[in-house]
Amino acid sequence: MTITYESLKDSTVVSLRHAIRRGEYTSHTAGLGTGMLQANLAIMPQSHALDFMRFCQRNPKPCPLSGVSDTGNPMMFTLGADIDIRTDVPSYNIYRDGVLDRTVTDICDLWQDDFVAFALGCSFTFENALQQAGIPLWHIEHNKTVPMFRSGIETVPAGPFSGKMVVSMRMMPEDRVAHAVEISRKYPLAHGAPVHFGDPTDIGISDLNRPDWGDAAPVHEGHVPVFWACGVTPQVAIEAAGLPLCITHQPGNMLITDVSEFAEIPNYQSNTVFRGEQQ
Amino acid sequence: MTITYESLKDSTVVSLRHAIRRGEYTSHTAGLGTGMLQANLAIMPQSHALDFMRFCQRNPKPCPLSGVSDTGNPMMFTLGADIDIRTDVPSYNIYRDGVLDRTVTDICDLWQDDFVAFALGCSFTFENALQQAGIPLWHIEHNKTVPMFRSGIETVPAGPFSGKMVVSMRMMPEDRVAHAVEISRKYPLAHGAPVHFGDPTDIGISDLNRPDWGDAAPVHEGHVPVFWACGVTPQVAIEAAGLPLCITHQPGNMLITDVSEFAEIPNYQSNTVFRGEQQ
Repeated sequence: MTITYESLKDSTVVSLRHAIRRGEYTSHTAGLGTGMLQANLAIMPQSHALDFMRFCQRNPKPCPLSGVSDTGNPMMFTLGADIDIRTDVPSYNIYRDGVLDRTVTDICDLWQDDFVAFALGCSFTFENALQQAGIPLWHIEHNKTVPMFRSGIETVPAGPFSGKMVVSMRMMPEDRVAHAVEISRKYPLAHGAPVHFGDPTDIGISDLNRPDWGDAAPVHEGHVPVFWACGVTPQVAIEAAGLPLCITHQPGNMLITDVSEFAEIPNYQSNTVFRGEQQ
Repeated sequence: MTITYESLKDSTVVSLRHAIRRGEYTSHTAGLGTGMLQANLAIMPQSHALDFMRFCQRNPKPCPLSGVSDTGNPMMFTLGADIDIRTDVPSYNIYRDGVLDRTVTDICDLWQDDFVAFALGCSFTFENALQQAGIPLWHIEHNKTVPMFRSGIETVPAGPFSGKMVVSMRMMPEDRVAHAVEISRKYPLAHGAPVHFGDPTDIGISDLNRPDWGDAAPVHEGHVPVFWACGVTPQVAIEAAGLPLCITHQPGNMLITDVSEFAEIPNYQSNTVFRGEQQ
């Protein structure tokens, strides 16, 4: 049985994740599980985990680490009461020696006792906040994929992981930029403030009409391009590292967690008085 | 030659760190290197580093990770142009099998090729911000050590690292609490917002007059105790883990970095347009 996107729009996170676990929903998660933190995924053997974790710590804007599994344990127990990373993502990309081998809907048969799973915050979180503040987002309004560019900004390397920072671009009226900065800065677990706005050549991007990923967005008079660090950065670093085996989510098809988008820390059980407080 | 605290108060960070490197200053760093991020230190063999990094990721309020060295490399190159972690902290505690063995002023003879050094943000950062906002801090005004308590809040374990969260307590007028929360929340790399305020028994603290570390603070009419996650938490977790060898800073004697206290990310070279911006 296959379930449609529309029929899941009002589902609870638990029933949504169960549909994904049963393989009944295998597509993108934008706009699903409203209010909950969604995450990019990277799974690799423990032998590379410390270097990858260093890469995330050194590049927190493209790689905001929101959860790390115990070695060999597929339950992401800080992100939810019952999240099995082998089944609870709609679809997975399997990389062998840095090359995409195939795409699958669960990884039960691939799971290894030495695997470590990493969840990294994604842009859906701050995009929701921008929209709630009335800042128009062209790609969402037109059902397109946000344009992404390989910038000239170097990441800080760690072990085999390195490369240029990938950035996503959103055009907006010039007088809304300061507000967009202020809002997104409140979400360090979802890329934080932009890395740049204005002239794209300042960060090594020569042509806004030719994104490296996603759809080109029209350039309107009085609008300014604003660039955020993008979760494709770690994917590119992983490909370049050429690990014998590495598993990621298929782009757009995220892990939906039990952590509130407004949580100060990425733990669904956080019992501090400020858990879930919106500021 | 020994240099006094007073003579260093107006020193640049570089000359300050050089005095520390030469062993001429071996004491506390509160109030020195104004405007720069200071950090707690933990050094351990790589065999425990992934678990310790998980512990920090899972407990970001007591353990805000601001820097991690490459294995065997004593230069903390993300935190400054020339920071040698073997010499650039005023004094170090050497733990063997979880027990304090001795205190030394450099660790050149102890450094190992498998060592990983971790820098964790500390409370000096948000305390400076609170003082600048006119919120009185009793322990600073009276040259005392902030009172710290072993709370009933459990940390999220990782490998051998676990234990109760240690919290620091600051009394303040009730009408300043909301402002203190708002200010400190802006510094997730320095413990962020408080974990609790008001009744200490809510978090398992029975007697405010008997702190587990530091000096008891007087309780004034109309003042409320506010509790922040404390950097002693990882020290306690490290002691309980009983690692054969682990090195920390001596409490109060911090690493002074080249990263601005207002930096969005802990990298002194960050070239994003929002580096160092104060909000």
